[in-house]
Amino acid sequence: MTSTPGTAGDLAVGMVGYAFMGAAHSQAWRNAPRFFDLPLHPRMRALAGRDASRVADAAERLGWDSTETSWQALVARDDIDVIDVCTPGDTHAEIAIAALQAGKHVLCEKPLANSVEEAEAMAEAAEKAAAHGVRSMVGFTYRRVPAIALARQLVSDGRIGTIHHVRAQYLQDWIVDPQAPMSWRLEKDKAGSGALGDIGAHIIDLAQFITGDSIRRVSGRLHTFVGERPLPSEHSGLSGTAGSGTGQVTVDDAATFLAEFGGGAMGVFEATRFANGRKNAIRIEVNGSAGSLAFDFEDMNLLHFFDGSEDARTAGFRRILVTEDQHPYVAAWWPPGHIIGYEHGFTHQVVDLVNDIAAGNAPTPSFADGLRVQRVLAAVETSSDTDSWQEIQP
Amino acid sequence: MTSTPGTAGDLAVGMVGYAFMGAAHSQAWRNAPRFFDLPLHPRMRALAGRDASRVADAAERLGWDSTETSWQALVARDDIDVIDVCTPGDTHAEIAIAALQAGKHVLCEKPLANSVEEAEAMAEAAEKAAAHGVRSMVGFTYRRVPAIALARQLVSDGRIGTIHHVRAQYLQDWIVDPQAPMSWRLEKDKAGSGALGDIGAHIIDLAQFITGDSIRRVSGRLHTFVGERPLPSEHSGLSGTAGSGTGQVTVDDAATFLAEFGGGAMGVFEATRFANGRKNAIRIEVNGSAGSLAFDFEDMNLLHFFDGSEDARTAGFRRILVTEDQHPYVAAWWPPGHIIGYEHGFTHQVVDLVNDIAAGNAPTPSFADGLRVQRVLAAVETSSDTDSWQEIQP
Amino acid sequence: MTSTPGTAGDLAVGMVGYAFMGAAHSQAWRNAPRFFDLPLHPRMRALAGRDASRVADAAERLGWDSTETSWQALVARDDIDVIDVCTPGDTHAEIAIAALQAGKHVLCEKPLANSVEEAEAMAEAAEKAAAHGVRSMVGFTYRRVPAIALARQLVSDGRIGTIHHVRAQYLQDWIVDPQAPMSWRLEKDKAGSGALGDIGAHIIDLAQFITGDSIRRVSGRLHTFVGERPLPSEHSGLSGTAGSGTGQVTVDDAATFLAEFGGGAMGVFEATRFANGRKNAIRIEVNGSAGSLAFDFEDMNLLHFFDGSEDARTAGFRRILVTEDQHPYVAAWWPPGHIIGYEHGFTHQVVDLVNDIAAGNAPTPSFADGLRVQRVLAAVETSSDTDSWQEIQP
Amino acid sequence: MTSTPGTAGDLAVGMVGYAFMGAAHSQAWRNAPRFFDLPLHPRMRALAGRDASRVADAAERLGWDSTETSWQALVARDDIDVIDVCTPGDTHAEIAIAALQAGKHVLCEKPLANSVEEAEAMAEAAEKAAAHGVRSMVGFTYRRVPAIALARQLVSDGRIGTIHHVRAQYLQDWIVDPQAPMSWRLEKDKAGSGALGDIGAHIIDLAQFITGDSIRRVSGRLHTFVGERPLPSEHSGLSGTAGSGTGQVTVDDAATFLAEFGGGAMGVFEATRFANGRKNAIRIEVNGSAGSLAFDFEDMNLLHFFDGSEDARTAGFRRILVTEDQHPYVAAWWPPGHIIGYEHGFTHQVVDLVNDIAAGNAPTPSFADGLRVQRVLAAVETSSDTDSWQEIQP
Repeated sequence: MTSTPGTAGDLAVGMVGYAFMGAAHSQAWRNAPRFFDLPLHPRMRALAGRDASRVADAAERLGWDSTETSWQALVARDDIDVIDVCTPGDTHAEIAIAALQAGKHVLCEKPLANSVEEAEAMAEAAEKAAAHGVRSMVGFTYRRVPAIALARQLVSDGRIGTIHHVRAQYLQDWIVDPQAPMSWRLEKDKAGSGALGDIGAHIIDLAQFITGDSIRRVSGRLHTFVGERPLPSEHSGLSGTAGSGTGQVTVDDAATFLAEFGGGAMGVFEATRFANGRKNAIRIEVNGSAGSLAFDFEDMNLLHFFDGSEDARTAGFRRILVTEDQHPYVAAWWPPGHIIGYEHGFTHQVVDLVNDIAAGNAPTPSFADGLRVQRVLAAVETSSDTDSWQEIQP
Repeated sequence: MTSTPGTAGDLAVGMVGYAFMGAAHSQAWRNAPRFFDLPLHPRMRALAGRDASRVADAAERLGWDSTETSWQALVARDDIDVIDVCTPGDTHAEIAIAALQAGKHVLCEKPLANSVEEAEAMAEAAEKAAAHGVRSMVGFTYRRVPAIALARQLVSDGRIGTIHHVRAQYLQDWIVDPQAPMSWRLEKDKAGSGALGDIGAHIIDLAQFITGDSIRRVSGRLHTFVGERPLPSEHSGLSGTAGSGTGQVTVDDAATFLAEFGGGAMGVFEATRFANGRKNAIRIEVNGSAGSLAFDFEDMNLLHFFDGSEDARTAGFRRILVTEDQHPYVAAWWPPGHIIGYEHGFTHQVVDLVNDIAAGNAPTPSFADGLRVQRVLAAVETSSDTDSWQEIQP
Repeated sequence: MTSTPGTAGDLAVGMVGYAFMGAAHSQAWRNAPRFFDLPLHPRMRALAGRDASRVADAAERLGWDSTETSWQALVARDDIDVIDVCTPGDTHAEIAIAALQAGKHVLCEKPLANSVEEAEAMAEAAEKAAAHGVRSMVGFTYRRVPAIALARQLVSDGRIGTIHHVRAQYLQDWIVDPQAPMSWRLEKDKAGSGALGDIGAHIIDLAQFITGDSIRRVSGRLHTFVGERPLPSEHSGLSGTAGSGTGQVTVDDAATFLAEFGGGAMGVFEATRFANGRKNAIRIEVNGSAGSLAFDFEDMNLLHFFDGSEDARTAGFRRILVTEDQHPYVAAWWPPGHIIGYEHGFTHQVVDLVNDIAAGNAPTPSFADGLRVQRVLAAVETSSDTDSWQEIQP
Repeated sequence: MTSTPGTAGDLAVGMVGYAFMGAAHSQAWRNAPRFFDLPLHPRMRALAGRDASRVADAAERLGWDSTETSWQALVARDDIDVIDVCTPGDTHAEIAIAALQAGKHVLCEKPLANSVEEAEAMAEAAEKAAAHGVRSMVGFTYRRVPAIALARQLVSDGRIGTIHHVRAQYLQDWIVDPQAPMSWRLEKDKAGSGALGDIGAHIIDLAQFITGDSIRRVSGRLHTFVGERPLPSEHSGLSGTAGSGTGQVTVDDAATFLAEFGGGAMGVFEATRFANGRKNAIRIEVNGSAGSLAFDFEDMNLLHFFDGSEDARTAGFRRILVTEDQHPYVAAWWPPGHIIGYEHGFTHQVVDLVNDIAAGNAPTPSFADGLRVQRVLAAVETSSDTDSWQEIQP
């Protein structure tokens, strides 16, 4: 760190990758100190990417002071305190482990890795680094949506009681059209898995976070509805247009699974890119002995809460507009009723990370948390391959 | 009455009119004793209408034991205890007053009359009759929707506090098409007024009922968007098809008005048949110093309640599904979550009327309540004609 | 039948059982001819129950002309055309088969039986009886909710396309309190199963009905959260109060299962009596290649429809208020926007049954449909017991 | 301008005021160039405020390069192209007119001024300045919410038809507690008016913007529910705590008014700070001959659209999630379903202003548009004072 924790010093950040996630992380580093009182001032020092010209353009646009054309060069720099990993999953392990070994704090995008083995190595590296005061965090940003953070609080406060049910869905529809072209997200060697790892990972983490419990075993089924797709005219991401020839889709289009939690709760999970009309519907419901919660990311500033102790005459799900000063993260933003959006979760992630680094605390979700999600993902895949229930290693 | 109040005797009913309202009232008389324990057993003794053949068909279909071809004959019958008036508004006064004078209890559809003068005469007749134990009620059935009755209870219990705002809308769209044909409801001499009297009357009554307060003065504006419409091929009601020639629309298509309540609350009212896409949206919101209420008839089993005394962290409008045994009228129906519909309000009206007759209580809404609504309707019309605020006689 | 099909003759009905379902069926027989033009006039001739005094009271209250103290006596009567079976599931097979063999049409409540074996015998009996013009129907009334019937139409019309996802939940909370007392619904020998058979059966039938497809295999998990409950002070049904001593709950409190449909759709099902705050939430969503549907029984007059062919700029789930004359069953009721309730599904069931009997058509859902649901229920139980996927016999 | 329009030069901004609006504007200037391709690069050059120490702190926190302790000094600087006025309404006229006369482009917060006279002077100054290529815009940012911009497009495209009804509400509750302390917003000489000018101004502008029509006359009623409030312990804004002594509230707590539009539409407006439980509910509904629209800012990424030309069987309000690339402003942000928040409207305002300056176009809403709103505000006040309808000067 370029300055002493606890003083208003600087915290120099280097980021690898500058696509969708890179843009989201950049705005977070840029805006966090404008709205929150941070103990360290983040400096957007360097951006790394393989193509010199494109990385220079991105740095200009996103506000980074300098560039590197390899992540190795970035990690080697003395003037960097934090490495922010925004690349596809197949590169996370190598970059993050190297950075931790170089004594850099690491913020790594989710899913932590493309395999349990990689994730284990990362969690081990994180644990070793922590012994030397080096911090790490995995980017399950949805934990930082105020309504989700409030949900966690209500469970912790005992307002929900013993949890009986968790139903969680992550519904998108961006490849429901069979003519939507190939992308790296549909190739197993780059993306690890499809809907399961990309979006299912989020609801697994959220379910475990909100309940404070872990999934013990799963029975799942993955499915690929469209096995062959046109190649993109050029590599053009989500919005690509079709070119000539076709490619094989080697990941799942959708994943469903039943889960049993350590505490006995019954879970039902579903992640899909084929839910026509649903764009980014992260929907979580929790039913407990004392109350219930319901959340939908398409209305992300709302939390629905049923208090089972209320009189039956006036009981009902409360539509809590999570924009009050008393709500997590909210006091830094706007007056009540002035809602925030998707990107604010990333800003809150930066805030929590910077506070933890300055205070010498272990950030959450940790790489160990990321590993736990990875194990669930792997168990769901094995379960689907073998038509059997799979236990999750605790 | 053909039997002593308090015993399980009979209560013989005669009904005048058998159109939309007649069908709704008939099912109420038929079903009320099947679901509720009533102190008197309603007998559907006779139905009156001018056309012998049509009234006979209707009696057969709706379940009435006999028929009459004039209301006078019905009122003259010794074996009738209650006259149920389901005719257009221009006939209410004559029938109801005659019935009261003949010692029959009267249930009269809303609006009570087509003018304040008629309504005054009716209220006076009702008061005189009451001195002899003859009961009367005006059919503002929406008061008997459980969610509305619960709203009234919450205000009475002090859960809403001093009322600051009432916003009430009754939105329909059945004549938004300029080619929708003429009907008696669009003629002033038959219908009295248009959207104002037909549907605006309901929200005036509901606002006064829920708040327990009266409107003191109004500033309103009536408007007719489509002044001329095709004549129906035959007289065919709401769903009529156009014939040849056109007729003049002599009532308002929509009415808006501001209101000041006796207790100082500010009211905003709107009744229209031109709200494209809204079918029967009776929407009422009440904001008070201690809490708020919101209701929409398109989801009539729900009441939204905000309790201002809750902690800001967990406060929110509660979506009360008004289907619990603890809710008004509900215990007689189905288990929680099994909703009821439009017609059940009419059944509850019968239940309340029969109970009041048996117990010798004065039913509500009384003819005096109906007169109060009529005075507001008249004040809104005068206000619109003269571009001035109009006081309502207390 | 006491009169020739096709003429406006009578159809004499005898009902067995007079609890919750008996009340719902009675109002249906009573009201159907008042709102719909039926080719035969239902006559509520006789009600059967074991306790002479209680069955007499019920017949009086519900409107049945006579009583019998055994179902055998009822089935033996010459003046009965239809036997309506409203008893607990363990008696369905015996009664229904005897009635069919006696040449009576049979309407049997769901689930068809308590075991696949019984259901097979019933389906076989129904098929034999059909050869002699004797009709049978199983009471999955939710098919007759207009919004559900519309959903089926939209799938049939191709507006949803190839179906990818079905997610269906039936959520209640009536025994979430561990002190809620025992009832026959919690005993396996009487009820067959718990949440699975009681309410899960409905969503299995609805999912197969709406999609027009069948479930091919399942992986499920049943769970009992509260294994021991206080005995009721007396046998007092759902609303019983606790007495002394406890009883063993021998059925599931909740059931979750994954399903694979014949056409490849992925299904996720959940039935529970432990979803705090959810009273009767039957929620079904269907996502297809051309569009999507969403339904929640707590707002049973609404169907949400996403048309994937719409321009992205104006595409969105349409909130269809299913109260138009163009909607199934609706024209017989009230004007647009005047909603109907839970019980109307039973009325529509009577309408369809009477029409089918008069026309000589085979009613749906047939006993074979009921058997199909029973096989899914059995497969889910076996799957839960053995932690394996189970195929459903086609 | 410090660089030639049309080239990627700089646009130097100076801002006056740094409270709530100052923070919102600062993030807009900071983020706009990161997400949108702008023809000029905004530079946050200087921030002006009276207290040297506080303005220095604010400049550091909000990201401004330098400070001034008077707006006059800011306006006098040669290195400033745009003056952004974020002060209370009583200072708008003086600052904006001076800036325009000095050849600076001006962005002025709403309401444009505290009186019609001031607003007229400002509009005149803007018109003169425009002749020399100097641009001005008033900050009705809600026009830049994508759902609102889409609403305007649908009206322009003819999808709504002739407009019959506009109902608009701006509901807050921040002073419903009578012990909430005094603030400058409750003093007429500083704030001009209360709920009417502060929030009613927004819905007046939105109604005129969406419909493309102007309000012709109004009948209104203002009311102050709580006339005396505790003085704040210190001047501490909205969240102030009570001190000793009380102050007089000299503005309205709530305003209601009827409106008649030039094209004949009937309007109903309501602005209040006393709607318990409503935090920032800007609700607008428009009903026209061809369709309808509904919007609520508490769900600001949604627009509800009813297309009256759809078949009755499948017609319904469409819940449009306004997060598609085809929607106004959205392509610059996140993938579909990833919602944006309150502050993004300010960013869009900067984008539109910078584009207009570079292109030499007249920005909207212009000062003339602001004057039009001011005239409606004044007419409502006069109407309330005189209990009469008031015409608005065209």
